[in-house]
Amino acid sequence: MSTLVTNIGSLVTNDPAQGDATPLGLVLDAAVVIDGDRIAWVGAAADAPAADEAFDAGGRAVIPGFVDSHSHLVFGGDRTAEFNARMSGRAYSAGGIRTTVAATRAASDAALEANLTRYLDEALRQGTTTFETKSGYGLTTHDEARALRIAAQHTEEVTYLGAHIVSPDYADDPAGYVDLVTGEMLDACAPHARWIDVFCEKGAFDGDQARAILTAGRAKGLIPRVHANQLSFGPGVQLAVELDAASADHCTHLTDADVDALANGGTVATLLPGAEFSTRAVWPDARRLLDAGATVALSTDCNPGSSFTSSMPFCIALAVRDMGMTPDEAIWSATAGGAAALRRSDIGRIAPGARADIALLDAPSHVHLAYRPGVPLVSDVWRQGVRCR
Amino acid sequence: MSTLVTNIGSLVTNDPAQGDATPLGLVLDAAVVIDGDRIAWVGAAADAPAADEAFDAGGRAVIPGFVDSHSHLVFGGDRTAEFNARMSGRAYSAGGIRTTVAATRAASDAALEANLTRYLDEALRQGTTTFETKSGYGLTTHDEARALRIAAQHTEEVTYLGAHIVSPDYADDPAGYVDLVTGEMLDACAPHARWIDVFCEKGAFDGDQARAILTAGRAKGLIPRVHANQLSFGPGVQLAVELDAASADHCTHLTDADVDALANGGTVATLLPGAEFSTRAVWPDARRLLDAGATVALSTDCNPGSSFTSSMPFCIALAVRDMGMTPDEAIWSATAGGAAALRRSDIGRIAPGARADIALLDAPSHVHLAYRPGVPLVSDVWRQGVRCR
Ligand SMILES: [Zn+2]
Ligand SMILES: [Zn+2]
Repeated sequence: MSTLVTNIGSLVTNDPAQGDATPLGLVLDAAVVIDGDRIAWVGAAADAPAADEAFDAGGRAVIPGFVDSHSHLVFGGDRTAEFNARMSGRAYSAGGIRTTVAATRAASDAALEANLTRYLDEALRQGTTTFETKSGYGLTTHDEARALRIAAQHTEEVTYLGAHIVSPDYADDPAGYVDLVTGEMLDACAPHARWIDVFCEKGAFDGDQARAILTAGRAKGLIPRVHANQLSFGPGVQLAVELDAASADHCTHLTDADVDALANGGTVATLLPGAEFSTRAVWPDARRLLDAGATVALSTDCNPGSSFTSSMPFCIALAVRDMGMTPDEAIWSATAGGAAALRRSDIGRIAPGARADIALLDAPSHVHLAYRPGVPLVSDVWRQGVRCR
Repeated sequence: MSTLVTNIGSLVTNDPAQGDATPLGLVLDAAVVIDGDRIAWVGAAADAPAADEAFDAGGRAVIPGFVDSHSHLVFGGDRTAEFNARMSGRAYSAGGIRTTVAATRAASDAALEANLTRYLDEALRQGTTTFETKSGYGLTTHDEARALRIAAQHTEEVTYLGAHIVSPDYADDPAGYVDLVTGEMLDACAPHARWIDVFCEKGAFDGDQARAILTAGRAKGLIPRVHANQLSFGPGVQLAVELDAASADHCTHLTDADVDALANGGTVATLLPGAEFSTRAVWPDARRLLDAGATVALSTDCNPGSSFTSSMPFCIALAVRDMGMTPDEAIWSATAGGAAALRRSDIGRIAPGARADIALLDAPSHVHLAYRPGVPLVSDVWRQGVRCR
């Protein structure tokens, strides 16, 4: 079963071999043929081959589906009151991540899965065709493993984050918690995950602990990624590059040496502007990273505490407004950049052989994702060749 | 024909006589009865009367439809390239408003109306049930009057803005253009408009010109509103209060005397954060205005040059993040505040006798409009009692 999507006014392929030879590989007056779950053909609409059925894009813009490489969607509970108090300048005895840990532990598998699929569907409607998600709100062997099992039923990109914070159960014994995370918990979790992650930050895990955790995960076949340099300067970014992590995420507080490491290593810098937006924090400097030659991804960090957005277009608009990215760079980072952060070459681009993950915009150009902030512009979505919006 | 909307988890009425006695008049576990185009009953779901049909809100939040009291939606042409260049730091020989004036003059009535309804439908899907819109891209008697005629077919809130900029045709004779705007053009436009507006700013119209234009409009039965203090300090805000304008819009650069005038006068301060977002400008200080006692409205300023968003939820999120508003204040300003800026008591609230303009959110609380930025949360909309999403 093949589908010709034709009369595409403006097509972002992220394939410089196509179109205008920029990183976006922009093709005007384009068409795409989907065959099964793959892209079979890309080119000028006038040259398009026949297919079993046709879809008229009406001159609108098409982009690769968004790749959201950083989210925390296996959680229970509600933190609306905490957010409201923070933004209203009122005191609130917030438990932070601990609030969500307690609610997640108390939730049934079915409740966690229903919550997860709710936000995944919401993201899909907004054009996100690949998402990564993590454990990290269980912090016991049982609860971390079940979070990963639930997540793995809905995405291939599952990350073990037992090292989100030191479990409240080990408040007086952080070393004991690291032993758990690198021992029994890792053994239970590794079969369900592709990635291992650690929150390397004052108050969470220091550089030595993070190194021990990531190294133990690697020995079990997991690939590292790191929550690095979000709230303060620290060793996270350079540790990520040293261990050849796929991504260093947040990158808000960077020294020149951190930027150099990212520019010269194989680790993607994943920026999460939703977190800075919702916590009124300073913005990561995407311009500095791009000018140094680093690979930059954009992602939502969707979670109920610090960034409860599932909207990649919103992150693009913030990246352009506040992080020094051009619209083209931001759209590349939200698609091809996310794919690089997940070490995937089959997504984040529209080219023969790639997955048929496509978003059609109710706009003549991808630039409108930044030009029209807040407006839900994604009108149609295909994921693995299946039209799902 | 009556409809009972029941099982509303959280209802914003903007009627302090109802519910929790805050300005939002929040009622939990609520129901609303719509009868024809009006609200017939509001109260606890357990006490709700019978109706011809019922709609189960599923425990979600309901708010009054947004009142967008400031937009510029009668326009032709495209300014994507100008936006892209500005945000990419590239030089661009931008014509600014003049680009849109030329394209608007060249567009057919049908093209202008199709463009207008496209953005109105887009806004309606996002919960905006009342919108004001303006002329200002014609700048000839013929083109201003036709813009207002087209707008008046789609909203009661039509504003004559012949004084948007000095017409390029009068570049050497601004006094002659003021004569036109207050003479022949006003005569042709007044029958189609409720409001008269002027862009009081360096490079547009000074305080004396603005006073002459607004006074002439008032003599023809139009009520003043003013584009005031957007790009710099100036006389606009105090002139607006002096002339008892319904609203002073933008209010980005205010002296203490300006704030005092707004706090003590009958003029609403309408803040338009989309403009500051898309031009990387400094934010208006909503907190300062609220603390002084001014009435604050939020609106989109939707236009193709400086703020191409139609999303009131996006403006709410910005107001909370960057302008010092609490979520409650921002939601009040986007509904009841907009109604005050249009001197309307029949909209912006959910109370017996008010228009049945209602938005249902895919969220348990109105706070989620700020908590979940960029996410399209409006799931169902009734306008004048008609379900239109
Ligand atoms: Zn995270
Ligand atoms: Zn305006």
